[in-house]
Amino acid sequence: MNIGILTIGDELTSGRIRDLNSPLIIREAARMGWVVSSILSVGDEISAIQRAINYFPDHCRATIVTGGLGATSDDMTTEAMARTWGRQLIRNEQVLSVLRDHVSARGFRWTEKHARQAQFPEGAEPIPNPVGSAWGFSLTHRDCLFIVLPGVPEEAAVMITDQVLPRLHRIDPSPNNVILSRTFKCFGISENEIEEKIRALIPHDEMTRIGFYPLFPEVHLVLTIRNANQKQANANLRNFETAITDVLQPHLFGRDHETLEGVVGNMLRQKRLGLAVAESCTGGLITDRLTDVAGSSEYLERGVVSYSNASKISLLKVPRHILVDHGAVSESAARYMAEGIRTASGVQLGLSTTGIAGPAGAVPGKPVGTVYIALAHPGGTVCQHFVFPRDRRKVKVAATHTALMMLREYLNTSPPGIGNP
Amino acid sequence: MNIGILTIGDELTSGRIRDLNSPLIIREAARMGWVVSSILSVGDEISAIQRAINYFPDHCRATIVTGGLGATSDDMTTEAMARTWGRQLIRNEQVLSVLRDHVSARGFRWTEKHARQAQFPEGAEPIPNPVGSAWGFSLTHRDCLFIVLPGVPEEAAVMITDQVLPRLHRIDPSPNNVILSRTFKCFGISENEIEEKIRALIPHDEMTRIGFYPLFPEVHLVLTIRNANQKQANANLRNFETAITDVLQPHLFGRDHETLEGVVGNMLRQKRLGLAVAESCTGGLITDRLTDVAGSSEYLERGVVSYSNASKISLLKVPRHILVDHGAVSESAARYMAEGIRTASGVQLGLSTTGIAGPAGAVPGKPVGTVYIALAHPGGTVCQHFVFPRDRRKVKVAATHTALMMLREYLNTSPPGIGNP
Repeated sequence: MNIGILTIGDELTSGRIRDLNSPLIIREAARMGWVVSSILSVGDEISAIQRAINYFPDHCRATIVTGGLGATSDDMTTEAMARTWGRQLIRNEQVLSVLRDHVSARGFRWTEKHARQAQFPEGAEPIPNPVGSAWGFSLTHRDCLFIVLPGVPEEAAVMITDQVLPRLHRIDPSPNNVILSRTFKCFGISENEIEEKIRALIPHDEMTRIGFYPLFPEVHLVLTIRNANQKQANANLRNFETAITDVLQPHLFGRDHETLEGVVGNMLRQKRLGLAVAESCTGGLITDRLTDVAGSSEYLERGVVSYSNASKISLLKVPRHILVDHGAVSESAARYMAEGIRTASGVQLGLSTTGIAGPAGAVPGKPVGTVYIALAHPGGTVCQHFVFPRDRRKVKVAATHTALMMLREYLNTSPPGIGNP
Repeated sequence: MNIGILTIGDELTSGRIRDLNSPLIIREAARMGWVVSSILSVGDEISAIQRAINYFPDHCRATIVTGGLGATSDDMTTEAMARTWGRQLIRNEQVLSVLRDHVSARGFRWTEKHARQAQFPEGAEPIPNPVGSAWGFSLTHRDCLFIVLPGVPEEAAVMITDQVLPRLHRIDPSPNNVILSRTFKCFGISENEIEEKIRALIPHDEMTRIGFYPLFPEVHLVLTIRNANQKQANANLRNFETAITDVLQPHLFGRDHETLEGVVGNMLRQKRLGLAVAESCTGGLITDRLTDVAGSSEYLERGVVSYSNASKISLLKVPRHILVDHGAVSESAARYMAEGIRTASGVQLGLSTTGIAGPAGAVPGKPVGTVYIALAHPGGTVCQHFVFPRDRRKVKVAATHTALMMLREYLNTSPPGIGNP
């Protein structure tokens, strides 16, 4: 079943307030196997609302409308619906009496404005609001069930769970599809390359959908499987997952809510290895990312942001002649930095970056985006050279991700370590 | 002029990703005095896109479309528009050659998929993308100017400023109104408090609008002034700005595109002062922020992320008994850290943070979110204690902002310094 969402209010189209109702409706619909196909927001203007409600019946079996049910003059959802579809506004005496009690219980004075809230379009079924004063209502037009709710998120949330979902169930009682979804997070590979690699693995049918989402510097691949049979859906997902994991190595680092820093952190913890980081061009972003993970103090011993040559010499024991002869941005400097932080900290792994984040600083042979990344480990030191032709922030982000991927690669292949002090 | 927004992508209708493009378009349109009348989101489905694009021409003079311009099979915005309006897809050779260069510069392999991105509906004008590979295009249908952009926020943002606004200007030069807009960026004060403070200063007329945008951890106040008379508009803005600046001190740190790290960096450069940073709970985020500013190596000498006690002792000379008696999260530790990094680096200013980012680590009297921030300067050391009752990432972000604000406050009041080695 296709569902539409219509949110009404100047505060939404002017960007003053973020819509909190749509995400909730989307989540609940997905749980049930329904698809939200359109989300439309319009301001508090009667012609805009009239145009908007006519958008949905062609392609949606149900439409959830929020907003514009209050007692003030800018609330005109009810009137717009009645006018658009030539229905009279009819006062509901039962609702009126509940509203009177509600207003007096709160110590407010009853006015004719409040009485407006007891009016509904002909044929509508009022829906109680257990939190606030504005009742909702439901109304079927051209085979589309419209369910209209107040915009206040605390009120809408309760009504979505208690009133909307049961009504949707009544018109689609057995959404006989299980929906499973899995996100695959990759780095260092483009959308195109991913698609080429997995093309042969994914059946081109209605039940399987894939989507690509570039979230710099990562690319996410989302696989969605629908099936009437739970067991079959699970088996399909497992099969695709195995196949995808295989072809996307070594770029695939995580699934669903996993992060690269979380994955690397878990490996460090499991292998009982300690890490120290010496950053130049990444400016602290590597340790910032690592310390976003709760419990990272178990494996992150220290970080150093050696922005000046003096700090590279005093904190990391990089020989002055290396900086003079090869430059601070060089393979030798990166190696000395990684080894220096490893030695100073006494842990097993030292990770370093040095590069030119730009926009200034390029020299012949070393354009903006040049980065050397080194990892000193118990068996030696590896160093790689990259050029990220990006702006300053993106050079930092790409270099940070690359450094963490190098660390992950090492942890994937290294033998189990020994206890970290 | 009425403007429509259409965002395309399963990631939006499935709720996986928050739409960052619409808020930007809304804000820029408001600055110019244009009204966003409808915002519609649909998934990556050709019939949904076809239905959606036909929604706008009746009531919008222009429609900004984002998403579905990539090279993968789920990107079908261009095809949907061509099909809906019976226009042929025509390959643009110039764009094709730019795409080839772009792909090879990034070291990716050219495929036929990439060539799809050089196809545009008949009559469309391609719009360059200075950040990514997907070009946009503009196309007029039934008197509505459609401007189609990639969905990636970093790409869309640049194109909105550089390409969309000038095109909208051409169709609505709004000759009768000068529109001036100023963003005031505040930290450490709520929207409500800002509103109370400025309420008396802002005239309640049609020509002056204010909007509040909480962007954690900052709150932005946007003032928009319309006036038929340029001189009058400028004078009004100047008056409001003076009044607002006065009442919002000390929370107001910047305007328009200024950032806190940029403001602090400028002050350090002007005063010729050097800075070194010792971070515990902020984990490198302070130096990450500082080094986002080009040229920050002029004043940032080094940073240390002293996550372990051993690193606090060896790198910052924090006495062991302080860590044992007072704990690593204490005023004494913060003061020693700031003084230690100042001494070790030889620069004038040492900034430090130590705290409990959580979720674990709370002790009696020191709940999660407890943070001590110290600044060691030529005249002594100041230390402040805070509790940020937030999740781990937000504790780090709030502590970083607070530390930079403390530094700004010091630089605002300190005498001019002397040259930094």
